[in-house]
Amino acid sequence: MSDAPEQGFPVAEYAARTARAQALMAAQELSGLLLTTEAEVRYFSGFHTLFWQSPTRPWFLFLPAEGKPIAIIPEIGAPLMRRCWIEDIRTWPAPRPQDDGLGLLTDILAPLAAQGARVGLPKGPETHLRMPLGDFETLLARLSGLDIVDATGILRSLRMVKSDTEIAKIAHICAIGSRAFARVPALARDGQPLEALFREFRQEALAQGADDVPYLVGGAGQGGYGDVISPPTRKPLRKGDILMLDTGATWDGYFCDFNRNYAVGTPDAAARRAYAALWRATEAAIAAVRPGVPCRELQEVMQAELGPQGSTVGRFGHGLGMQLTEWPSIAGFDETVLQENMVLTLEPSLVHGAGHVMVHEENIVVRAGGAELLTERAAPELPVI
Amino acid sequence: MSDAPEQGFPVAEYAARTARAQALMAAQELSGLLLTTEAEVRYFSGFHTLFWQSPTRPWFLFLPAEGKPIAIIPEIGAPLMRRCWIEDIRTWPAPRPQDDGLGLLTDILAPLAAQGARVGLPKGPETHLRMPLGDFETLLARLSGLDIVDATGILRSLRMVKSDTEIAKIAHICAIGSRAFARVPALARDGQPLEALFREFRQEALAQGADDVPYLVGGAGQGGYGDVISPPTRKPLRKGDILMLDTGATWDGYFCDFNRNYAVGTPDAAARRAYAALWRATEAAIAAVRPGVPCRELQEVMQAELGPQGSTVGRFGHGLGMQLTEWPSIAGFDETVLQENMVLTLEPSLVHGAGHVMVHEENIVVRAGGAELLTERAAPELPVI
Repeated sequence: MSDAPEQGFPVAEYAARTARAQALMAAQELSGLLLTTEAEVRYFSGFHTLFWQSPTRPWFLFLPAEGKPIAIIPEIGAPLMRRCWIEDIRTWPAPRPQDDGLGLLTDILAPLAAQGARVGLPKGPETHLRMPLGDFETLLARLSGLDIVDATGILRSLRMVKSDTEIAKIAHICAIGSRAFARVPALARDGQPLEALFREFRQEALAQGADDVPYLVGGAGQGGYGDVISPPTRKPLRKGDILMLDTGATWDGYFCDFNRNYAVGTPDAAARRAYAALWRATEAAIAAVRPGVPCRELQEVMQAELGPQGSTVGRFGHGLGMQLTEWPSIAGFDETVLQENMVLTLEPSLVHGAGHVMVHEENIVVRAGGAELLTERAAPELPVI
Repeated sequence: MSDAPEQGFPVAEYAARTARAQALMAAQELSGLLLTTEAEVRYFSGFHTLFWQSPTRPWFLFLPAEGKPIAIIPEIGAPLMRRCWIEDIRTWPAPRPQDDGLGLLTDILAPLAAQGARVGLPKGPETHLRMPLGDFETLLARLSGLDIVDATGILRSLRMVKSDTEIAKIAHICAIGSRAFARVPALARDGQPLEALFREFRQEALAQGADDVPYLVGGAGQGGYGDVISPPTRKPLRKGDILMLDTGATWDGYFCDFNRNYAVGTPDAAARRAYAALWRATEAAIAAVRPGVPCRELQEVMQAELGPQGSTVGRFGHGLGMQLTEWPSIAGFDETVLQENMVLTLEPSLVHGAGHVMVHEENIVVRAGGAELLTERAAPELPVI
């Protein structure tokens, strides 16, 4: 793909992320930060592999108060980690159920426990601990002096604001996704099983330059579809269907996340109105985006446009980057204030007709002057195929 | 795909899984089992969606001592869950950080806590708790009377042995993977960037009928490759390279997991010998498979064939099914005894030449009479392209 950005990041980016984390850690008097999930480990190390698909082995990254992160990882990952900027790489021959990294973690944490030091661990919304809970309990029992506190805020504030290099990757995959969606009218046909269309869409996204299409959901049904997270069935597309595909494709470890709606044959008035309302709600949110605006306000702007049809389930968008969905939420509860270089999805949804749902989604980056679209803006009227 | 099995499972399969779990729960005097991960929830409910890619929302399934499982899930999943066999579906408008399902879980668990009941939770190897740790701590504080014990053994013993319907799905995706690998000599060419070949392989696997290719790793290098979990680089293939692709493709939620090695041009003697040794080791393991044999013994059989070159890192295979890797491990520490209808990968690896690694992998199902290959057996000599 000749227009593709460079793969990876300069070492300076990892150094800057680590320095910013350490500044926030210092403000909370943290002696370290223990990370266990794919995105957390990759964010600070550059360690990028699909091997996380295997649930067998735990992986750990420890950010000390000063200096580079320390990798505590299965031996199988050492060659790849050595090509990252990390220097201190400690390995064990995982899987080894009697000690899957606990001894190595204890080496690092026991001296801190002896001082009664404070160590951060993400414990808050949208995080989880990716290691066996029993092993974590064993570790806690060994390190009773350690003061373990929630460090979600540190990761959240860092990861919500993207670097130029990150934005370039997201913009690239959004452009790939836009080109793939533009091909849907040529791929979809009356009588085609939905699962066949999904398969062809995946192939098209790859042909357009995606590395992978980890997320592809949607639906089709007469007058509308019933939910927005289902895998495709073998049911054939037919005239009168409203079709929706929602994709999270990736390039170099970064996601797009947006969808497109189509009518198979002439749509009924309810579906046309629903689509137009969602398009206007998204337009209003795009116009409302600027640094300083709280996420809650974007939700309100969209809800005002949709009126009582507006879905009250969940949220109307979210952050986007290394994961399909990231902090913040475009939701009434989220007072997070927009900052320059946040990447967001705007995703209003509503209920129409006989219990149908419809969702519309675009991806934007917050710039000083307002929203910059990363996706090719959907047509203002429901496209007919 | 005309040769594809039916999608999904008959309700009887979920009822049988639940009944088997409840029998094991009764033996341990468990009043319930709390599950939080994709595979666990899907195994007992049939709830199948890629939406788990989003880390935002927790999902819970509670297996009571008797009766059907109870789903405690975000409202966005209710339409899909209602199409499963589950009847008791309790939802909340997630994300809702101040109460992401905790109130609903408390409704179920508080009466059990009041009785000092015992509830199982997977805490052991290859498991994790997919909910914010802080929320789990809050729940524990509310339910101090509850005796929470590790239930890994129950899930492990159930999921290791596959039903005929599960085996048919795995066999189907293994056949798709085999057809895709057979096309690699036609897809690969001198000068082709490795990432382009990976992209074409993904498209080929989809064309052959895969739903998705969530896992594709490998490498290429002069005389051999350096690790077995890396994503592809843009480095062009060239004569003298040893190329390896390892794929976990899926069909209807079930994985294959195997790889193939190729020489680009005439390989050197070390690579040829390494390949032949791995092929023989796999052949020896295939011959050794039968019900009653401990997993450890398969590791020993392969190690004996490989001699001192044999890799001592990790393991020489593992279980396979809803996840890319599952219990058991083909490893010295694993005394699990093979049973009929276990599905396994046999995956010996060794070190050769100047620090190169080589791995070879096949998928089999344990039958009364021995191993039945699910993958088309690799050629006994290193294929040249």
